[in-house]
Amino acid sequence: MKAPISRYPLPDLADLPDDMRDRMLAVQEKAGFLPNVFVALAHRRDEWRAFFAYHDALMEREGGLSKAEREMIVVAVSADNDCHYCVIAHGAILRIRAKNPRIADQVAINYRKADITPKQKAMLDFALKVSRDSRSIGDTDFGKLRAHGFSDEEIWDIAGITALFGMSNRMANFLSMRPNDEFYVMGRELE
Amino acid sequence: MKAPISRYPLPDLADLPDDMRDRMLAVQEKAGFLPNVFVALAHRRDEWRAFFAYHDALMEREGGLSKAEREMIVVAVSADNDCHYCVIAHGAILRIRAKNPRIADQVAINYRKADITPKQKAMLDFALKVSRDSRSIGDTDFGKLRAHGFSDEEIWDIAGITALFGMSNRMANFLSMRPNDEFYVMGRELE
Amino acid sequence: MKAPISRYPLPDLADLPDDMRDRMLAVQEKAGFLPNVFVALAHRRDEWRAFFAYHDALMEREGGLSKAEREMIVVAVSADNDCHYCVIAHGAILRIRAKNPRIADQVAINYRKADITPKQKAMLDFALKVSRDSRSIGDTDFGKLRAHGFSDEEIWDIAGITALFGMSNRMANFLSMRPNDEFYVMGRELE
Amino acid sequence: MKAPISRYPLPDLADLPDDMRDRMLAVQEKAGFLPNVFVALAHRRDEWRAFFAYHDALMEREGGLSKAEREMIVVAVSADNDCHYCVIAHGAILRIRAKNPRIADQVAINYRKADITPKQKAMLDFALKVSRDSRSIGDTDFGKLRAHGFSDEEIWDIAGITALFGMSNRMANFLSMRPNDEFYVMGRELE
Amino acid sequence: MKAPISRYPLPDLADLPDDMRDRMLAVQEKAGFLPNVFVALAHRRDEWRAFFAYHDALMEREGGLSKAEREMIVVAVSADNDCHYCVIAHGAILRIRAKNPRIADQVAINYRKADITPKQKAMLDFALKVSRDSRSIGDTDFGKLRAHGFSDEEIWDIAGITALFGMSNRMANFLSMRPNDEFYVMGRELE
Amino acid sequence: MKAPISRYPLPDLADLPDDMRDRMLAVQEKAGFLPNVFVALAHRRDEWRAFFAYHDALMEREGGLSKAEREMIVVAVSADNDCHYCVIAHGAILRIRAKNPRIADQVAINYRKADITPKQKAMLDFALKVSRDSRSIGDTDFGKLRAHGFSDEEIWDIAGITALFGMSNRMANFLSMRPNDEFYVMGRELE
Repeated sequence: MKAPISRYPLPDLADLPDDMRDRMLAVQEKAGFLPNVFVALAHRRDEWRAFFAYHDALMEREGGLSKAEREMIVVAVSADNDCHYCVIAHGAILRIRAKNPRIADQVAINYRKADITPKQKAMLDFALKVSRDSRSIGDTDFGKLRAHGFSDEEIWDIAGITALFGMSNRMANFLSMRPNDEFYVMGRELE
Repeated sequence: MKAPISRYPLPDLADLPDDMRDRMLAVQEKAGFLPNVFVALAHRRDEWRAFFAYHDALMEREGGLSKAEREMIVVAVSADNDCHYCVIAHGAILRIRAKNPRIADQVAINYRKADITPKQKAMLDFALKVSRDSRSIGDTDFGKLRAHGFSDEEIWDIAGITALFGMSNRMANFLSMRPNDEFYVMGRELE
Repeated sequence: MKAPISRYPLPDLADLPDDMRDRMLAVQEKAGFLPNVFVALAHRRDEWRAFFAYHDALMEREGGLSKAEREMIVVAVSADNDCHYCVIAHGAILRIRAKNPRIADQVAINYRKADITPKQKAMLDFALKVSRDSRSIGDTDFGKLRAHGFSDEEIWDIAGITALFGMSNRMANFLSMRPNDEFYVMGRELE
Repeated sequence: MKAPISRYPLPDLADLPDDMRDRMLAVQEKAGFLPNVFVALAHRRDEWRAFFAYHDALMEREGGLSKAEREMIVVAVSADNDCHYCVIAHGAILRIRAKNPRIADQVAINYRKADITPKQKAMLDFALKVSRDSRSIGDTDFGKLRAHGFSDEEIWDIAGITALFGMSNRMANFLSMRPNDEFYVMGRELE
Repeated sequence: MKAPISRYPLPDLADLPDDMRDRMLAVQEKAGFLPNVFVALAHRRDEWRAFFAYHDALMEREGGLSKAEREMIVVAVSADNDCHYCVIAHGAILRIRAKNPRIADQVAINYRKADITPKQKAMLDFALKVSRDSRSIGDTDFGKLRAHGFSDEEIWDIAGITALFGMSNRMANFLSMRPNDEFYVMGRELE
Repeated sequence: MKAPISRYPLPDLADLPDDMRDRMLAVQEKAGFLPNVFVALAHRRDEWRAFFAYHDALMEREGGLSKAEREMIVVAVSADNDCHYCVIAHGAILRIRAKNPRIADQVAINYRKADITPKQKAMLDFALKVSRDSRSIGDTDFGKLRAHGFSDEEIWDIAGITALFGMSNRMANFLSMRPNDEFYVMGRELE
């Protein structure tokens, strides 16, 4: 009774252009398995390239928010959008980045009660406002974040990651994308 | 930066009446640790007794829904109420009851995409309607459940478990009740 | 065209165990009639016992909120959940406890405009937050209530009564429980 | 601790033009008291005239919905808008028009469970849709009402009464308009 | 594929009473065309008279808010209610009254980002609260408006216009009223 | 009182890398002006490149939905997100693509009442569901679209465009991005 990886056909890796296959093989080598998002989105090659370019631009940008904080944003936003793939996959990455086996579940269920700093809660409050109510964002929101010490470039990162994963959540929900079984247990024994 | 178990004072087990302490020791012996809900709610003894009596009446009733299905209802409703304690603790119990290491995360994030049967999805659709919109429940809802083979006593169980954990979720959120660390990893290696 | 008392079968008082029947007869003697909730919930005996034990623990606890204030919470929460039985039955009790023939309708329709004190409005603001958005309860909410003079035990009472009647409202809506005709007019001529 | 009749100044009847004072005296003679809405809205004379002209055009139109059904719409819509004045005042009129002491509370709390006909429930379903989601009204809604036997003119009445009292509810809430004490008890002893 | 002007029959101008036809001819002469709302609502003559009397009492009252500000309220509220007729028709009037070709689209899409003053944004914040959540209006709302310099009579105007067009929006949505093509382009070349 | 183009600094075209400047100049030559989105997003170069690559992959894909239909999706989704820049800019493009001066306002205000085909309304119903409630998308939604004749690749396009502009709307709202004045009037005189 296990659901398929995606509603749409999955390409054969052998048929993909070199740039796409090379990245997939590199990811697979590093992670030990190939995350399903790489295969499911490859049904559309140009969209696949743009998506991962966007992802890298925000998630691997030099400086600013820590890697763990970026994943917190992904997990909080994806949980609010009820995105099965993104919460499971990025929850695993968050546990590893934060070296904390419980943080992903805490952020996904209710970040207000998670073991994170007040500054990180302010970051997630803003991310959720971008996700649910971007129409109302104004100077007051920027003021709150600056009071916590966020730079304007970091604020852009929070908004950008939220907006990007809002897109990703909608696509994964649309495709009923299934997370790899490996993600469920990664990083749970870190202590 | 770990949050306390509850906003309110925790009683000393030694000060509790025998019936309460006996149950706690029995649970502790069986589980290997004492779930925080037993301690946090013991701040009010009569409420504690009524709560666990209600819990047992619904969760351990003979016949009807399977133990795993009852826990599915708890997890789905608690996730909808963003209840940290209940999702983590009952997620663990669900993994064990269902002998499935991934089911709790799936049901918590989006039961519509979980690896469960159509009958179980209808059960959770109804539970969520009781939780969010009980004012609109009518004959049509009963008809759908009966078409899936649920008896009227099982339908009562779905509603009762949903209502009971709606109460429990509100109390746990009010107390900022913290789940025991043990729950996060229980049942994740079942396969 | 009068609806039945409950969707489920009603037990015969003669068939009930002594503890249940004794309580029902006592209530009937005091009130002059037997409120339907006692009969409708008696379809499940252990749940019945737990429910009324929980009710008494919160509604008849010594000290703290006045009896009228407890009923205000019940009426405001039940009205927000559109629970026919609970608004009518506890509206009657509120009129009697508060010795005020208009207060129940006022609290049920819009407690913000009711003839109650600012402290009582703060109490109901908090009750409604527990009912609708318990996920967001935090230190700020406790601060507001303490500023109005509520003790921590009284705050627990507000949350507990709200959570209990959230459960009760869902069960009464699920059962389409019908209030006794007597409740509609009780306490309306107090002045 | 009784709230004033309105946030705005109340005119002296002696200062009002004849047409307004004559109507008020006629209403007072018939009802035995002058409903506060006549005084509170008289702060703006032309709006007062237009409001009551609109009211009469819809509520006293010949033919179509019964007088009791029109009041059911007013009570259901006003309750959904949490309008203190309108629920209390028109609840009283509904009890009298329907010769039923319980119907107003039932319709106000949850019309889906009220002792009314399926046709009347369809009427109130539509009224609530006009009130909350008029943007989505389409052929399907007209089809449902026609299937229950409503004529197109009656459907206009349902929409018109809903729209008019949507305006009235907003004004009464804005003014914190207080219902006369008499309304609370009118029509409660009809049986 | 152009939709009809209204779901209901349109009267022939020749059949209408003099007062209605005279007003229509006067409007037609001034605007160069007859706005569809005059024809569509004329299916019910007494409601038509009350509607336009109400409209004139608020929109043409001496003193207080500027004509452009009154139209801003109409456009913001009508956009929030997704009312096709009212946004298009009153958007045109707003462009003309404000002598600004872009203001109507800005106010309709998101008044918080429109090129209007902070005082006007406060006015529209209040209008939207009257429209969506009149139950919660209280002293704080009046305080904010007075701090911006609004008189109590102007505050009444904001609420009254909002309430009136809430009614009008519901009727226009119910009728699927079609705006005249002329409105789409009026006032777009003002600069 | 005209708002700035963006909350963040705008790069000087002379400082941008060739690929970015070349595209901007090409767009400017074709449109007669440079849409502000190109300048505002250029504050982050890699994100800019990924964004426009994604845009082109979906909006200029060979085959499938017509260009006008793609813009309808953008306008309907952007209006639901209250995105000032996107509704104004893509409204202009929609008018031109559809050769219809009124369609953009109609789709933005309430696509259910717009002069479009039932198939196009089904397309927008689905887009709005992806935007607001992607968690619930299932076989039933695909069935409805296929019944209207949409291919699976077209369905992907609807979802993809919706998800992409959901991201774009959040960024434009976050930046308070201002549309160029030219967009307001483009395509309004097509008939």
